[in-house]
Amino acid sequence: MAVSVTAALLIIGDEILTGRTKDKNIGYIAEYLTGIGIDLREVRVVPDVEEEIVAAVDALRNRYTYLFTTGGIGPTHDDITADCIAKAFGVGIDVDPRAVAVLRERYTPEELNEARLRMARIPDGASLIENPISKAPGFCIGNVFVMAGVPSIMQAMLDNIAPTLETGARMVIETIEAEGLAEGIYAEGLSQVAATHTSVSIGSYPSFSTSGFRNQIVVRGKDPEAVAQASAAVRDHLRRLKGDQAPL
Amino acid sequence: MAVSVTAALLIIGDEILTGRTKDKNIGYIAEYLTGIGIDLREVRVVPDVEEEIVAAVDALRNRYTYLFTTGGIGPTHDDITADCIAKAFGVGIDVDPRAVAVLRERYTPEELNEARLRMARIPDGASLIENPISKAPGFCIGNVFVMAGVPSIMQAMLDNIAPTLETGARMVIETIEAEGLAEGIYAEGLSQVAATHTSVSIGSYPSFSTSGFRNQIVVRGKDPEAVAQASAAVRDHLRRLKGDQAPL
Repeated sequence: MAVSVTAALLIIGDEILTGRTKDKNIGYIAEYLTGIGIDLREVRVVPDVEEEIVAAVDALRNRYTYLFTTGGIGPTHDDITADCIAKAFGVGIDVDPRAVAVLRERYTPEELNEARLRMARIPDGASLIENPISKAPGFCIGNVFVMAGVPSIMQAMLDNIAPTLETGARMVIETIEAEGLAEGIYAEGLSQVAATHTSVSIGSYPSFSTSGFRNQIVVRGKDPEAVAQASAAVRDHLRRLKGDQAPL
Repeated sequence: MAVSVTAALLIIGDEILTGRTKDKNIGYIAEYLTGIGIDLREVRVVPDVEEEIVAAVDALRNRYTYLFTTGGIGPTHDDITADCIAKAFGVGIDVDPRAVAVLRERYTPEELNEARLRMARIPDGASLIENPISKAPGFCIGNVFVMAGVPSIMQAMLDNIAPTLETGARMVIETIEAEGLAEGIYAEGLSQVAATHTSVSIGSYPSFSTSGFRNQIVVRGKDPEAVAQASAAVRDHLRRLKGDQAPL
């Protein structure tokens, strides 16, 4: 049995819940973690409200190997993530000399005002996550990684975090085009393939455009051999449905 | 005090959590609900796993005025949303004659096979949500609205649902460009504006491109007068920072 390393993602911010900002981080992080062998199992989006953030952090950090958060670590009054994380862990929080040193690389002493020093507030016991773009660091405490919400900064932080993460077996994914076959036509046989290949998960995904539906069947699993066998069974099933007698 | 109608959104599907499919529904639904006076307070993404779906449905439907779900109502074995909803509500589920009648508008009797009849499985006591695109209906039970995951179908369903929803006062939103001012420069004064205009929420949102940061300040609230006053205070603050003595 392959080792499973799991994760949750917590997106923090009113701007996502009002639709003002269209999230670009979920899809990026999902693909990134899948690619390095970490299973993203849950995502939550919560508003800039302390008790909501603390409750979600506690629920998710206790359930999965890792929790990643994005958003709420800037200099303005609505940036409350660091304080919420400290509260969730029951530790103190203050302006951190290591973070101040990093901010000094970007700001002159006059520029480093009280608001900007908010970005140096780091919970006790946390380690910093480097931000090569705008300097203000993220941080890691326990199994929680706190990142910026701005996608380019989050992505750079994730690159810095990735080498430190425990990872499991990578998901092997095969995508099979249904090539004109409707879901309702292949569903029953696909269900039988799924029932006899229980070590993989098989999904069927329709997408719709002006030219009609396009269906893709995706076989996922940690055992490459099992994925290959299930994928072959799916292809055989589709081939039979099409009455295609071409050589295997 | 304006009436507040709240909602949560539950996105169901492994394909989102693996990054295979990039979600387009969260942003759309968030903006849509905000526009009609419903406050989206929480979003969760869960995998195609019965106990996860049931637990999330129960947590969210009991907490908010409405729960909207997307995904998992197609004809294939991984489409388990309807059964999970029935389980969450503790009601039976079976092929529903009303849903079969709708599917017959699209499928001949031979085409309407067992797999496609899965799309007619509707929990007892639910009402149907029309799907003008591919016919297979969504449904509503209690305060839960179950929609397709394909964005165009979900959007059509949402249009059909909207007139039936209780709505609260619409959010009034003003967006103010910081026009070159850094967050760290205006943060302290913005915090004071926020502290003296407590009936609105004020957010500061940086975005980053090759041409640098662009900051926007967003004032949100249900009382247009309060939003106008807070926005004026924000603009005054920015103007003072810029040393701009232009007439008010």
